[in-house]
Amino acid sequence: MKQARPLPHYLVQRYQGWRATSFNENRAWYRRLADEGQRPRAMVIACCDSRVHVTSIFGADSGEFFIHRNIANLVPPYQPDGQQHGTSAAVEYAVNALKVTHLVIVGHTHCGGVAGCHAMCSGHAPELEEKTSFVGRWMDILRPGYERVLELPEGEQVRELERQAVLVSLENLMTFPFVRERVESGDLSLHGVLHDIGDGTILQYDPTADRFVPVSG
Amino acid sequence: MKQARPLPHYLVQRYQGWRATSFNENRAWYRRLADEGQRPRAMVIACCDSRVHVTSIFGADSGEFFIHRNIANLVPPYQPDGQQHGTSAAVEYAVNALKVTHLVIVGHTHCGGVAGCHAMCSGHAPELEEKTSFVGRWMDILRPGYERVLELPEGEQVRELERQAVLVSLENLMTFPFVRERVESGDLSLHGVLHDIGDGTILQYDPTADRFVPVSG
Amino acid sequence: MKQARPLPHYLVQRYQGWRATSFNENRAWYRRLADEGQRPRAMVIACCDSRVHVTSIFGADSGEFFIHRNIANLVPPYQPDGQQHGTSAAVEYAVNALKVTHLVIVGHTHCGGVAGCHAMCSGHAPELEEKTSFVGRWMDILRPGYERVLELPEGEQVRELERQAVLVSLENLMTFPFVRERVESGDLSLHGVLHDIGDGTILQYDPTADRFVPVSG
Amino acid sequence: MKQARPLPHYLVQRYQGWRATSFNENRAWYRRLADEGQRPRAMVIACCDSRVHVTSIFGADSGEFFIHRNIANLVPPYQPDGQQHGTSAAVEYAVNALKVTHLVIVGHTHCGGVAGCHAMCSGHAPELEEKTSFVGRWMDILRPGYERVLELPEGEQVRELERQAVLVSLENLMTFPFVRERVESGDLSLHGVLHDIGDGTILQYDPTADRFVPVSG
Repeated sequence: MKQARPLPHYLVQRYQGWRATSFNENRAWYRRLADEGQRPRAMVIACCDSRVHVTSIFGADSGEFFIHRNIANLVPPYQPDGQQHGTSAAVEYAVNALKVTHLVIVGHTHCGGVAGCHAMCSGHAPELEEKTSFVGRWMDILRPGYERVLELPEGEQVRELERQAVLVSLENLMTFPFVRERVESGDLSLHGVLHDIGDGTILQYDPTADRFVPVSG
Repeated sequence: MKQARPLPHYLVQRYQGWRATSFNENRAWYRRLADEGQRPRAMVIACCDSRVHVTSIFGADSGEFFIHRNIANLVPPYQPDGQQHGTSAAVEYAVNALKVTHLVIVGHTHCGGVAGCHAMCSGHAPELEEKTSFVGRWMDILRPGYERVLELPEGEQVRELERQAVLVSLENLMTFPFVRERVESGDLSLHGVLHDIGDGTILQYDPTADRFVPVSG
Repeated sequence: MKQARPLPHYLVQRYQGWRATSFNENRAWYRRLADEGQRPRAMVIACCDSRVHVTSIFGADSGEFFIHRNIANLVPPYQPDGQQHGTSAAVEYAVNALKVTHLVIVGHTHCGGVAGCHAMCSGHAPELEEKTSFVGRWMDILRPGYERVLELPEGEQVRELERQAVLVSLENLMTFPFVRERVESGDLSLHGVLHDIGDGTILQYDPTADRFVPVSG
Repeated sequence: MKQARPLPHYLVQRYQGWRATSFNENRAWYRRLADEGQRPRAMVIACCDSRVHVTSIFGADSGEFFIHRNIANLVPPYQPDGQQHGTSAAVEYAVNALKVTHLVIVGHTHCGGVAGCHAMCSGHAPELEEKTSFVGRWMDILRPGYERVLELPEGEQVRELERQAVLVSLENLMTFPFVRERVESGDLSLHGVLHDIGDGTILQYDPTADRFVPVSG
C-alpha cells in the first residue's frame, strides 16, 4: 500500500496530548476495557456529518456507546441476500453479540444526504439517479420517506424528510427478526432523536403524538 | 413507528448539561456551521467499537472530521452495481462533495469483528459462513487479508489481521477511480493507523518499511 | 498526598453540565441548605452496590435523605467499646443530632456481600474466614441470619439471606438505646425494604405476616 | 422484628412513579446488570450528608459508581485486627473484587461531622470525647488533620479541616497494601475532591501545588 502517508503533524500532536492527559489519567480503565471487553449499554446510529458529535452531546466516555455512522443515519430493510450490508452487520453485532439494551437513531438538521435525496426524488439531481452513484443508491433507502412528505408545501419537505430519515430507519429496524424479537420481549428499546445542529436542541419521536417533541428532564 | 420509547433520563440530563455548557460557549460557531455548511478537513473511517474514541484521540471539535464507522473499519472494493453500499457512499460524499484532503483508516486492537473473521476463515465459526450472517458477509471483505497472515504462527495471526483490516481498506480505496485520481493529483492523502486500545498508543503504516511504526511528533 | 490525580475529563464535563443546569435552577435552595443546615426527614441505609440507586427510586432531592451506604446494608449490634464504628456513628448522628423520623434499611437482590457471606458460612470461602479479610469480618454481622436460613433448601438460602440482611440490621438497630427509646416513644419509625434490582420492584417487611410483601400505593 | 412499619405513602408513590418511568424505559439494562453483575468504573467515598448528591453532580447512572457513604467521608488506617471495619471492607471489595480503576474521596463544606471534630479536638465538645460516643470515636480518624490546622487563625480552621478530611483519607488509603500496590502499578488512581454545597463548585486536590484547585474542563 505504497500511497499511505504519515499523519499530519497537528494530529500527531493532539494524539500525544491526549495520551499524556486523558489516557494517562484513565490508564487502568482502558486496560480493563481491553482485557475484559466492551459492554456498551447502547448502540447509536448517527450521520457521518462532522457537525454531529454524539459522544459530546450525551457525555459518553470510552466503552459506553457502540456507534455506527453512515450518510443520513439510515438503516436499510432486512435483506439477507448474502451481499455486503455494513449497517445490517453493525446492527446484528450490537444486538446479538453485544446485547445492547438501547438503540438510538440520531438524525440531524442541515443533512446534506437528506437534501440530496430530496433533490433526486424531485427530479433535480439526475446525477444521483445514475446506477454508479453510491450516494444516490444509498439514499434510495429514504425514498419511502419522500413519498410521505409530498403532501407538504415544498419549503417544508426537506425539513420533514430529515425526520423521515429517523422514522424510516426505525421502521426498517423492526423488519430485522432479531430486533423485533428483542423489542417485543422488552430486552431492547428503540429511540428516535433529531438534533438541530444550529440551535443545539434535540427532539425525540413520541409515538403517541406521532411527532418529534422536545425532551424534558 | 409505535415502538419508539423516550430517551433514558440520564441521557437527557447529560444532553441538557452539554447544551448549557459546551454548546452555549460555542453557540456562534455552531450557528455558522449550520448556516454555512460543514467543511471538514479529513474523513476518518473507524470501527463501531465503543472503546475507539477518534474525536478524543485526535482532539477533534465539531466540524473537523467526517466520520464513518462500521464493523472493523473496512472499505469494500469499488463495485458500482446499483446496490446499496453505505461505506462507498460515505467515501464518495467525502471525496467528491466535501473534498476532504485526508482520509484516515483507524484500525484497533482487540477488534471483535477481526477476531470473528479469523475464526470464520479458519473454520471455527460456521455460523458466520451462513448466507444470512450479516457480520460474516461483511467480514468477507477481509478474506484477502486472512490469506496473507496464514504464514504466521497461529498465535500471531489475529494481531496481524487487525493490521490487514487497515491495509486491505487502503488498497480497496485505491480501486475507487475518484479516490485514485485525487491521490495521484496530490489533492488527497491516505493514512493508515492502528490504535492499541489497551496501552493508548497509535501506530501508522509506513510504506517504505512496509509495516506499522510508532508516530513521532 | 502526592499520589492524587486529576479527575477524569468525562466527570469534569458532567459536573460542569450539572452545575449549569440542575444546580443553577435551584441555586437559592442549595444556598439555604448550606446556610441553614440540613433537615432530612429520613435516614436510609443501603448497599454500596452500583446498581442500587436509592435517590432515584425514591425521587429524593438534595436535603431529603441522610444516606449511609456500606456493604450489604448492615448495622452491627450496639457496642460502645471506644472503637471506630462508622455505621453506628452514622445512626447516632441521624437519630440524635438530626432527629430523623424514619430509618429505612434498603436491601437488594444479587448482593455480592450476601453471597460471599453464604459462601463463607457454608465453608466454601476460607479466604473470607481469615482474620485479615475486612469483607469477611464485616459479613460476620450477618452470621445470625445464616443460622436462620439453614433449614431451607440450599438453592433458596442466598435469596432468604438477602432478606435476613435487612432483618438482622433492624434487630440490631433496636439494641441501640437511643433508637429503641425513640421508636417506643413514636418519634422514629423503622422500615425494612428489599429491592429487586432486576425487575425493579420493592418489597417491604410486614411484621404481622412476618415476611416481605409488595408495597401498595 | 415486630417494630417495622409500612413505608410512608409519599415514598411508595415516588417508587411507583420511578418504576413506571425511569425503570420501565431502561428495563432491559437493569435486567442485564442483574444477570451479568456490576462492573463499576469508580468507587466514590462521600459523606452521608443529605446535601451531597454525588450521582447528580457526576451524572452517574445505575452501574457506574460503587458508593460508600459515611460521616465525613473518612477512611481509617489499615488495621487488620479481626474487628468490624465497614469502610475498610468496602474499599477491599471495590479494589480487590470489583477492580475499580478510580477511587474518589468527595469531601464537602458545611460538614457537621468535621465541625464536631473541631469542637471536640479544641475542647468544646466533651460529650464527643466520651468512650460511648460513636460519632466522637469515628471522628478520631481526623485528629491528625486537626493537628495540621492548628497553625491557622481559628476562623479558618474548620474550613481547612474539611480539606484535611479528604487528605487524611487519601493518606490512609495508601496504608492498605492492596491499594498501594494497585496505585503503584498504575491500575488504580486516587482522587480528592471538595464540593462546596452552597455555591455548587468542586475543587480537586493538586499534589504539585499542594492545595485544592478548581477543576477545569
